[in-house]
Amino acid sequence: MNPHSLPAPIRGIVPPMVTPLRARDEIDVPGLERLIEHILAGGVAGLFILGTTGEGPSLSYRLRKELIERTCHQVRRRVPVLVGITDTAFVESLNAARWAADAGADAVVLAPPYYLPEGQPELQEYLDHLVPELPLPLFLYNMPALTKVSFELETVRRAMDNPRIIGLKDSSGNMIYFHRAVGLLPHRPDWTLLIGPEEMLADAVFAGGHGGVNGGANVFPRLYVDLFRAAQSGDFLRARELHSRVMWISDNLYHVGRHPSAIIKGIKCALSLLGICDDFMAEPFHRFREPERDRVREFLNGL
Amino acid sequence: MNPHSLPAPIRGIVPPMVTPLRARDEIDVPGLERLIEHILAGGVAGLFILGTTGEGPSLSYRLRKELIERTCHQVRRRVPVLVGITDTAFVESLNAARWAADAGADAVVLAPPYYLPEGQPELQEYLDHLVPELPLPLFLYNMPALTKVSFELETVRRAMDNPRIIGLKDSSGNMIYFHRAVGLLPHRPDWTLLIGPEEMLADAVFAGGHGGVNGGANVFPRLYVDLFRAAQSGDFLRARELHSRVMWISDNLYHVGRHPSAIIKGIKCALSLLGICDDFMAEPFHRFREPERDRVREFLNGL
Amino acid sequence: MNPHSLPAPIRGIVPPMVTPLRARDEIDVPGLERLIEHILAGGVAGLFILGTTGEGPSLSYRLRKELIERTCHQVRRRVPVLVGITDTAFVESLNAARWAADAGADAVVLAPPYYLPEGQPELQEYLDHLVPELPLPLFLYNMPALTKVSFELETVRRAMDNPRIIGLKDSSGNMIYFHRAVGLLPHRPDWTLLIGPEEMLADAVFAGGHGGVNGGANVFPRLYVDLFRAAQSGDFLRARELHSRVMWISDNLYHVGRHPSAIIKGIKCALSLLGICDDFMAEPFHRFREPERDRVREFLNGL
Amino acid sequence: MNPHSLPAPIRGIVPPMVTPLRARDEIDVPGLERLIEHILAGGVAGLFILGTTGEGPSLSYRLRKELIERTCHQVRRRVPVLVGITDTAFVESLNAARWAADAGADAVVLAPPYYLPEGQPELQEYLDHLVPELPLPLFLYNMPALTKVSFELETVRRAMDNPRIIGLKDSSGNMIYFHRAVGLLPHRPDWTLLIGPEEMLADAVFAGGHGGVNGGANVFPRLYVDLFRAAQSGDFLRARELHSRVMWISDNLYHVGRHPSAIIKGIKCALSLLGICDDFMAEPFHRFREPERDRVREFLNGL
Repeated sequence: MNPHSLPAPIRGIVPPMVTPLRARDEIDVPGLERLIEHILAGGVAGLFILGTTGEGPSLSYRLRKELIERTCHQVRRRVPVLVGITDTAFVESLNAARWAADAGADAVVLAPPYYLPEGQPELQEYLDHLVPELPLPLFLYNMPALTKVSFELETVRRAMDNPRIIGLKDSSGNMIYFHRAVGLLPHRPDWTLLIGPEEMLADAVFAGGHGGVNGGANVFPRLYVDLFRAAQSGDFLRARELHSRVMWISDNLYHVGRHPSAIIKGIKCALSLLGICDDFMAEPFHRFREPERDRVREFLNGL
Repeated sequence: MNPHSLPAPIRGIVPPMVTPLRARDEIDVPGLERLIEHILAGGVAGLFILGTTGEGPSLSYRLRKELIERTCHQVRRRVPVLVGITDTAFVESLNAARWAADAGADAVVLAPPYYLPEGQPELQEYLDHLVPELPLPLFLYNMPALTKVSFELETVRRAMDNPRIIGLKDSSGNMIYFHRAVGLLPHRPDWTLLIGPEEMLADAVFAGGHGGVNGGANVFPRLYVDLFRAAQSGDFLRARELHSRVMWISDNLYHVGRHPSAIIKGIKCALSLLGICDDFMAEPFHRFREPERDRVREFLNGL
Repeated sequence: MNPHSLPAPIRGIVPPMVTPLRARDEIDVPGLERLIEHILAGGVAGLFILGTTGEGPSLSYRLRKELIERTCHQVRRRVPVLVGITDTAFVESLNAARWAADAGADAVVLAPPYYLPEGQPELQEYLDHLVPELPLPLFLYNMPALTKVSFELETVRRAMDNPRIIGLKDSSGNMIYFHRAVGLLPHRPDWTLLIGPEEMLADAVFAGGHGGVNGGANVFPRLYVDLFRAAQSGDFLRARELHSRVMWISDNLYHVGRHPSAIIKGIKCALSLLGICDDFMAEPFHRFREPERDRVREFLNGL
Repeated sequence: MNPHSLPAPIRGIVPPMVTPLRARDEIDVPGLERLIEHILAGGVAGLFILGTTGEGPSLSYRLRKELIERTCHQVRRRVPVLVGITDTAFVESLNAARWAADAGADAVVLAPPYYLPEGQPELQEYLDHLVPELPLPLFLYNMPALTKVSFELETVRRAMDNPRIIGLKDSSGNMIYFHRAVGLLPHRPDWTLLIGPEEMLADAVFAGGHGGVNGGANVFPRLYVDLFRAAQSGDFLRARELHSRVMWISDNLYHVGRHPSAIIKGIKCALSLLGICDDFMAEPFHRFREPERDRVREFLNGL
């Protein structure tokens, strides 16, 4: 598989993989291998590493490079690998993209630089400069709650004129934005439109989106794949039932802790309890302590 | 001068130096040297590099390291050098701190990791883990508009119990916060409390703060030093007159562009017009084009 | 029909009626009558007056009372009338509720008091005090963008224990919130759950909601009723096609002006061009001027 | 004293008076009289009723009218009375202004209508329509945290061209805004510029402002008057000492409760403990219960 063989659009679930760690700057290598196999066994359409759920911005560049290489090696082109290259520094985004290309990844994923907020014209010019230097095709990643800046729809529309930009992952949680993004699809039949929040996966597919980049698919990949398929095939009753299970995960597993990091902590804790990988978190976050871990255990037992 | 000889507190103006660039990943070396001499000639109390005004997060790590080394070499311990090590990745903050120590800098400056927002307990634990590994003393940098997370005053109070944390730069623009921070000073007579927004420099000094980290001091270092001294000595009339000149700079030079980057663009453009250094900006920002440059030229001529 | 005969839940479209005005404090009476008949002819499930689209907070209390009376008189119990009583002053909410009851309305609708933000415990206590004094059953109205305070889901859950509170209109635009609200429905089989943003009407009905309070139904009531029915009956293809027409209205009619008032201005302007009612706006807003009016005319011609 | 005899500018402390209540819609009349005398005995420069601290938006219109009349009657023109007329409904603002004029008040105070946010051009047009109909001169009240919309400085500058608009109360907490507002004063030598947050009173006077509208002056009017005078006369040391007492009040009295209402609750509780007036709060807020009341008692004992 090479970039030209990427499905266009990609349809299905592309889990934003957590990064199994053993220590501050050390990958849990066996855990990573088990996690990749666990996810791929669920029938996913791709794998997205170094995103928000993957704690990308918290990892050293050395570790990011190692993760890219190990992941691509383990996946062995069974599914496309998408690599997050979001960075406040243009040069570091380029470096990461080159590591991804060298390792055999299929595409890169980019949210707006997230320190000093850009205006949309600045963001457009940035894309104009960055994309020609990227060795892989690019997905835009709309995540305004964390980057402060959105890829506004005019900017997305303009990006669609560049064939090297091939899709959008929308994690805004704004369903009106997503519907508008669906409305742009006729401009690019090969464009992939994926949704971040898993609570909106069914909505997104009903609306005409192509799938989801949903954190819970680290733990329960099959469930999300099944929900995607039910929604895509118009099996409304089954979609509603699977959706209610996703809501149950969201209402419980992601609310054990109090801070925004609770979602990632919950996923990693569940994976640890399932024996898949370590739940070590990169600074400034830390794994759940025993009381929270007990609540996650209870949650898993209740399934 | 070594870290132990840092004034405690530092009193005066510590300009957040812009980073003179010639190209995307290249320092304007002669410009950097001229800029440092220009600033030091103004009587400043220190130099802060790799902050927001210094486009720190936009620079490659390679260039950050080079900038640290060149700056320390050029300053030759005439004033303390403070180095921004804010990063989303713990390991990279540590790396930058080591470069700073190796180059002979005097302290490092850290805002909260700025991607996924931490809760205050997470932020405190992060400091607990980071500070013991830092080879230099640390200033906290409160910049919630850009980092989303504030160093809340309870966290600052707690940090004061750690002698390796030696001060706070507050760029919140929240004068009530600053007054509360002044109220904490009796806990640590050696603590340095500096203000970011130059429009509030006089207020901050009247309130009991020790000085400012003010972007305009790149261009007009003497003006800010004079304002600091007038305020500190209680020369109220002179302080008010100098303050009105600072307001005039702020009202004009920083509002030539429309986006938040306009402040840095304005400062770099003025420095370029004064023949001090290049106005190249790191991505995703770009120097003013001719119409804006003409307005900055007019502004300088009007002085 | 009396309050006890309100469908429970109400299923369908309950348009948030604009308030036809001729002058600052004068109802366009013939326009009001025509508008009500126009809307009712579309097959709606109810009529909601004095909401955001109805410019409720901008109207004098005298005019609000007159509007309640005229509307109830014109509707003649053909559909339930819901009356917005949101107010910063408890006593004025009560007064409005009594006018509604006296005029024969069926329910009242309340968003949180919207000046100084309440905490959720304060909001719960407020409901505890208000509801027993209301002469009509109550719908909660979640509109955090305008009230700053949300009816958080714990507060909604608690409100469900009070049989005098009979439903929730969610205008948050947050689809995850809406899904969670759907998840509360088993606690109260008679509870009505409606969505505000029309762009999410189909999603809301697929998700298990009961209908919409959609501004565009002032102009095109039949379209929204048809979309509701298609979604409810699982006619997925037809729902998608009707949804795309709603998106087209949203993308065009609501973006003629630049400010948040543009939606109401667009709706009123369209109604005026269709000869249904005047487009006078209550202060601090003003009807479109000719250039904007021309764009709305073009939009209508393009239909 | 009539409107023409209002000092121009007003210099000093204009307390935003709390509204003493005995019950939901009943003024604590003896408490009101005692409170007015208590405040006036402190040497204040005016009295502002029906603002945020006065719970203006929470009161019925009947009670607002009664409060205006009773206050003007009790004050007997010893100081100017300013009456808040902020409202989402234009007609109700006018009504309140007429009550104020009829009762002998000296000026009215207006924040932007605070439900659906206006754009600045809409806000300007609104002022253009409102001011000619007001029977009293107008102060602008900048309170963006509660109204969502700011009087931007361009709008203030434009308002200065209208001689019926005579001042600005800034409660934004944004010191840069305040400095810019000071920079506009040369356009109107008669303009009054007052600051809301008492923690910034000294800053504001040093900066060239004319005084403060500070909630704590309900309880300790003399302290705020003394602080104002010390700052105005350049008695820097005394100003700093009095300021530190204000900070102590702010740090303690205003943080007994957890919600934004805590400031008003704290002030009313202190007044109740001092035997001045009842601490009943208008819905949706409620007076402190015993544990909080005990903390306020402790605070007062500690003074």
